[in-house]
Amino acid sequence: VDGPDTEESETGEAPDERVPLVVVSHRGPVRFSRDGGGVRRVERSGGGLVTALLATLPGLDRTRFDPVWLCAAATEEDRTVAAEHGSEPIQLDDLPCPVRMLAIDPDEHERFYSSFSNPMLWFIQHELWGLATEPVIGRAEHDAYRDGYVPVNHRFADAVHEEAERRGSRRPVVMVHDYHFYLVPGLVRSVLPDADLHTFVHVPWPQADAWRVLPAEIRGALLHGLLGNDVVGFHTHRYARNFLLSCQELLDIPIDLSEMVVRLGDRDVAATWAPLSVDLTRLQAEVAGDTVVQRRREIAQLRRDHLVVRVDRSDPSKNIVRGFLAYDLLLELHPELEGRVTFLAVVPPSRQDVPQYAHYLLEIRETADAVNARHARDGWTPIDLRIEENFPLALAAYQEYDALMVNSVADGLNLVAKEGVALNERDGMLVLSENAGAYDELGAFSLGVNPFDIVQQAEALHEALTTEPGRRRDLHDTARQMVEHNDAAKWLQQQLDTLDRHVAVRGSR
Amino acid sequence: VDGPDTEESETGEAPDERVPLVVVSHRGPVRFSRDGGGVRRVERSGGGLVTALLATLPGLDRTRFDPVWLCAAATEEDRTVAAEHGSEPIQLDDLPCPVRMLAIDPDEHERFYSSFSNPMLWFIQHELWGLATEPVIGRAEHDAYRDGYVPVNHRFADAVHEEAERRGSRRPVVMVHDYHFYLVPGLVRSVLPDADLHTFVHVPWPQADAWRVLPAEIRGALLHGLLGNDVVGFHTHRYARNFLLSCQELLDIPIDLSEMVVRLGDRDVAATWAPLSVDLTRLQAEVAGDTVVQRRREIAQLRRDHLVVRVDRSDPSKNIVRGFLAYDLLLELHPELEGRVTFLAVVPPSRQDVPQYAHYLLEIRETADAVNARHARDGWTPIDLRIEENFPLALAAYQEYDALMVNSVADGLNLVAKEGVALNERDGMLVLSENAGAYDELGAFSLGVNPFDIVQQAEALHEALTTEPGRRRDLHDTARQMVEHNDAAKWLQQQLDTLDRHVAVRGSR
Repeated sequence: VDGPDTEESETGEAPDERVPLVVVSHRGPVRFSRDGGGVRRVERSGGGLVTALLATLPGLDRTRFDPVWLCAAATEEDRTVAAEHGSEPIQLDDLPCPVRMLAIDPDEHERFYSSFSNPMLWFIQHELWGLATEPVIGRAEHDAYRDGYVPVNHRFADAVHEEAERRGSRRPVVMVHDYHFYLVPGLVRSVLPDADLHTFVHVPWPQADAWRVLPAEIRGALLHGLLGNDVVGFHTHRYARNFLLSCQELLDIPIDLSEMVVRLGDRDVAATWAPLSVDLTRLQAEVAGDTVVQRRREIAQLRRDHLVVRVDRSDPSKNIVRGFLAYDLLLELHPELEGRVTFLAVVPPSRQDVPQYAHYLLEIRETADAVNARHARDGWTPIDLRIEENFPLALAAYQEYDALMVNSVADGLNLVAKEGVALNERDGMLVLSENAGAYDELGAFSLGVNPFDIVQQAEALHEALTTEPGRRRDLHDTARQMVEHNDAAKWLQQQLDTLDRHVAVRGSR
Repeated sequence: VDGPDTEESETGEAPDERVPLVVVSHRGPVRFSRDGGGVRRVERSGGGLVTALLATLPGLDRTRFDPVWLCAAATEEDRTVAAEHGSEPIQLDDLPCPVRMLAIDPDEHERFYSSFSNPMLWFIQHELWGLATEPVIGRAEHDAYRDGYVPVNHRFADAVHEEAERRGSRRPVVMVHDYHFYLVPGLVRSVLPDADLHTFVHVPWPQADAWRVLPAEIRGALLHGLLGNDVVGFHTHRYARNFLLSCQELLDIPIDLSEMVVRLGDRDVAATWAPLSVDLTRLQAEVAGDTVVQRRREIAQLRRDHLVVRVDRSDPSKNIVRGFLAYDLLLELHPELEGRVTFLAVVPPSRQDVPQYAHYLLEIRETADAVNARHARDGWTPIDLRIEENFPLALAAYQEYDALMVNSVADGLNLVAKEGVALNERDGMLVLSENAGAYDELGAFSLGVNPFDIVQQAEALHEALTTEPGRRRDLHDTARQMVEHNDAAKWLQQQLDTLDRHVAVRGSR
């Protein structure tokens, strides 16, 4: 390893023997705010990625690794905190590691996040574009990439470099998360050629042609950025395979599908898969709390014979509208269910600054209203739509469902399916989209559906509500064991092991 | 070959020594009508497929083949003619071979054609669905397949069988065209296991995941239907490769990408590519006629310094709206062109019974109006939009363009590009979508564009209008030679040769 560099000498600190582990994600583990009295408050952020990292980082071998987490400042108070700390990471007792929040210029962040990453990359990777008319890649879209995505990726790559230098290392382990930072690995590799680099992609990786929506120079830059890694991880084998084939078909670089690597000549880039899971310990602690118990009582009030549940952000990829149409068809095909079933839909609003999302939320409301207008009678409301951020209600609903509907158009993994299976106490059945990454693990123990076929979804709901108890119990037990076995705590270690293995191969070549 | 069967004996006809060649296509070579005086009239139909078959069938070796062409009755008078002939083919002097028109029940045809084939298969194969909200595969869509596509495919397969029996053959050569008849080869194979079967797919074959829109049993049936063939032909290598990979990924059947075959166990199915071309002799005869000469004079009147042309049905796959937006951007980025360029768009209305098509035509009009409202002045109209069936105007426009815009979102081949290149007399430049099948042949001699990127399209139009004359001439000459070399007349023979070769292999196994 290299000796201390200039910065180290100036600060007078001795180089740490441990390897710097730099985690990069857009959302950080906490966000700061000020309450009415002007007192600074800190709250934990949500989301599957943050939850998984918070569950796994405490288990990290601290004699070997010296971790730091880089994220974007998300609130005004985050910016204030970031300014107070300069380029120094923040140390807080309830954080699993030091955190450095990067304050991005708001206009630049808007272009990076709301114009390019979402919706452009999100829509491409979930194949949501109606290509006949959208997207129109005009000057604003080119600007969003060039003056948003590119400089923000540079900012994060520079910060990775700084964190390595601060620790006097030229060979940090860098773990980059998701579609916001595809350029970071290439940029880090160019200044730290010996770094051990890993990106985990939390969204689907579609087949190569989906990427042809982007101008060739942009898709080429994104792929080459990812090829700065030693390992690129996905939730499923299919996504990993699609990634390799994308490199072959779009960049004309040789790949090896049996070894699952891209051959760059001087080194290989491996594609692996390791599905994320849920933090069971934390979930079980949460459902024991008073709030969830209270929500559960409320659900008992509204329950008729059967309870169908869905929990999804109002994202077009989640397929909420077709889910309601399938339920409408269920009631039409099986009038004996009228008055006996309730569909509780917990739908936190999502990304309402993106026009497609605002429109989709409107369509969700209108469809639920139409189904209710068509079937409601005698005080019975077929769909109980809750457009609100309400995690306690979601947790209570997981415990109480007879059928959990997860019919995503496309979904990197879908943690709702795993949370539901882990917590349900009624031998509920899972209706699961074949296009959700979780289908690889849970498909055999659920009712698989084509997300576009509402006839099949209506039939699956009917089957879910009428399957005999013994079979329901068997399926639910097996699914739950599967989720318990693949605990989130293993996930980070699995990636570090993979990275170690591939870096060892790189060293020996 | 087998001896005469019962039907032959009853009619007393001796079996023909020649091999029956049964061509199957939805649209036939002619359509019948009655004029005001009640006199039956016959006119040639349009479209690239019919034109190519009409160009190639006369060259068929009649000492070897006995051809008959099966198609759907398209007009009321077609039905009358079909009823008059019963199951006997129609013989007409100006037809290249006997034609048998099948009269399909109008409701069944509606389900087969307007509900399932278009838009479902067309939209899947051109990747036009905005999957967030469409399609919704409900009961109507299931019915369209089961009570439309399936029975119509059975009708055509039965007719193929009858035509083989009529000629006393158990081994006809059957050439099926396009996405309307994916089940026919499987059905024919089941009754005539030794038939030599070929399907040519005139639309793109997308990557496997695009097919996941369809219910598994439907997509499986379509693929298995196609695997009834000996050979499946496409316009490009990429489509043929995608077809093989679809069989592997969706059906889990082994394929060999180096030999380009699906391994069924008892036999192989080959995927080949042979791009369709244009009938140069006929095109040159047409442009010599008075009508085209007159249209050309009209174009000379409206020409300013530069003429941009596009000729496309009002199909969402053709990308007409983004083309106008790119032109709008061209005028904004290059104000020196204001008043000096005209965009003549010849747009025959298409499939106005399909809602998406009606909406798209509206959007075309609105976009052209908006661009004109923004830039028009002093009697100059930037976009001259002709929503009409007007082939003579299109031919004259081909001769006269300085830039021909072909920016399809997806396109099996695109014959406009070839017709334009063949006829242009001004060393015009071709702006060509990378997603058009014709890009394989003509990409090197045109300005390739990403169909979603209007900035690149605007730049390509500018380059097309400002490239220096020597280079324009070189590019145009080379492109024209390419089109002349791959004449349509070779296309059918190429397929028969491929079929012979693969059937010979089958025989020897």
